[in-house]
Amino acid sequence: MRPYEKDPAAIYAQSFATVAKEARLERFPEPLHKIITRLIHACGMVEIADRLAYTQTVTEAGAQALQNGAPILCDCEMVGAGIIRRYLPKDNPVIVTLNDPRTPEHARAIGNTRSAAAVEFWEPHIEGAVVAIGNAPTALFHLLDLLDQGFPKPAAILGFPVGFVGAAESKAELATNPRGVDFIALRGRKGGSAMASAAVNALAAGLPEVQS
Amino acid sequence: MRPYEKDPAAIYAQSFATVAKEARLERFPEPLHKIITRLIHACGMVEIADRLAYTQTVTEAGAQALQNGAPILCDCEMVGAGIIRRYLPKDNPVIVTLNDPRTPEHARAIGNTRSAAAVEFWEPHIEGAVVAIGNAPTALFHLLDLLDQGFPKPAAILGFPVGFVGAAESKAELATNPRGVDFIALRGRKGGSAMASAAVNALAAGLPEVQS
Repeated sequence: MRPYEKDPAAIYAQSFATVAKEARLERFPEPLHKIITRLIHACGMVEIADRLAYTQTVTEAGAQALQNGAPILCDCEMVGAGIIRRYLPKDNPVIVTLNDPRTPEHARAIGNTRSAAAVEFWEPHIEGAVVAIGNAPTALFHLLDLLDQGFPKPAAILGFPVGFVGAAESKAELATNPRGVDFIALRGRKGGSAMASAAVNALAAGLPEVQS
Repeated sequence: MRPYEKDPAAIYAQSFATVAKEARLERFPEPLHKIITRLIHACGMVEIADRLAYTQTVTEAGAQALQNGAPILCDCEMVGAGIIRRYLPKDNPVIVTLNDPRTPEHARAIGNTRSAAAVEFWEPHIEGAVVAIGNAPTALFHLLDLLDQGFPKPAAILGFPVGFVGAAESKAELATNPRGVDFIALRGRKGGSAMASAAVNALAAGLPEVQS
């Protein structure tokens, strides 16, 4: 067996230092550094830095929302599972409506996926909330459609749907017209629940693993 | 708003067809096609096909273990959350010991991470089980160390730890010497819980979304 690093603090410090060096974070606005670091750390891919789209104020807007006690609305259970609860400043509720018993029938009623139907059940919670999408392009597309129809606005959209059908397109739609909502998204096919959770964790706490 | 595909069956069919075409699955042994398809589908990256390491019998071994009712041992909650329970042939237990109350103290006792310490609590369950690692390199390293010390052998290791410190190295150690255990792993820094869950889902059910 080869030797390996076993100290969690050293692992985090070395990881974040590698990200900072290889991603050339200095090209990004300073308030974005921590969220970009966590995004890259979550997927092991420095190259995603080149394809991020965002509003300049997304980190302030998202962090302030969490400080206000806003809930976090996730498109799937995996995103919820990746949110580090002890980092949340106000024990913020983490809400996933995908497995709500009403979702399958509502999906048939609206002629869309379960992921899209589940977004409609966010309505009582979404005003000023943080939205974290790490799986379904249809969830992001449907949210944008609902916003066009006057759905209440979240404080921030963390847009990381993944895959071959609609992921790139839904994030392009968000980046082209974010409907007045702060956002960060990874253009293209890449994404995933680990990135969505990492973005929430960054808004909640930055990089506490390397801070005293 | 641009139009988008809203039919789940069409989304799955189009996704898997894109994977099959772009990943040139015909270069892999046929029993691997479904697991490779789900892995690529989970991350949106066709290019991971080029860096997979595996034993020829990993899918048979893993699928048979699940048919036998074997548990699935995961290194973190996100992997567990991504396993589609209705696909499991025997309502197989999904076990995550990372948040076991004994884990932090045991990590200090063995001078390793919580993820590594949690692996030791797999001992009563691991013989013939499916191991799914989607986060921590130290979990995979420590499992290999334990196997060298005579720990009971799982039926298959799905090795997808991710990141900048130890991920590539732990998977290289597994691929170089799998300790007589069937495995599939993605070489390098890339990986993640979505891939680990996808591998479990493939062993459990293949691609039921496009089968009658």
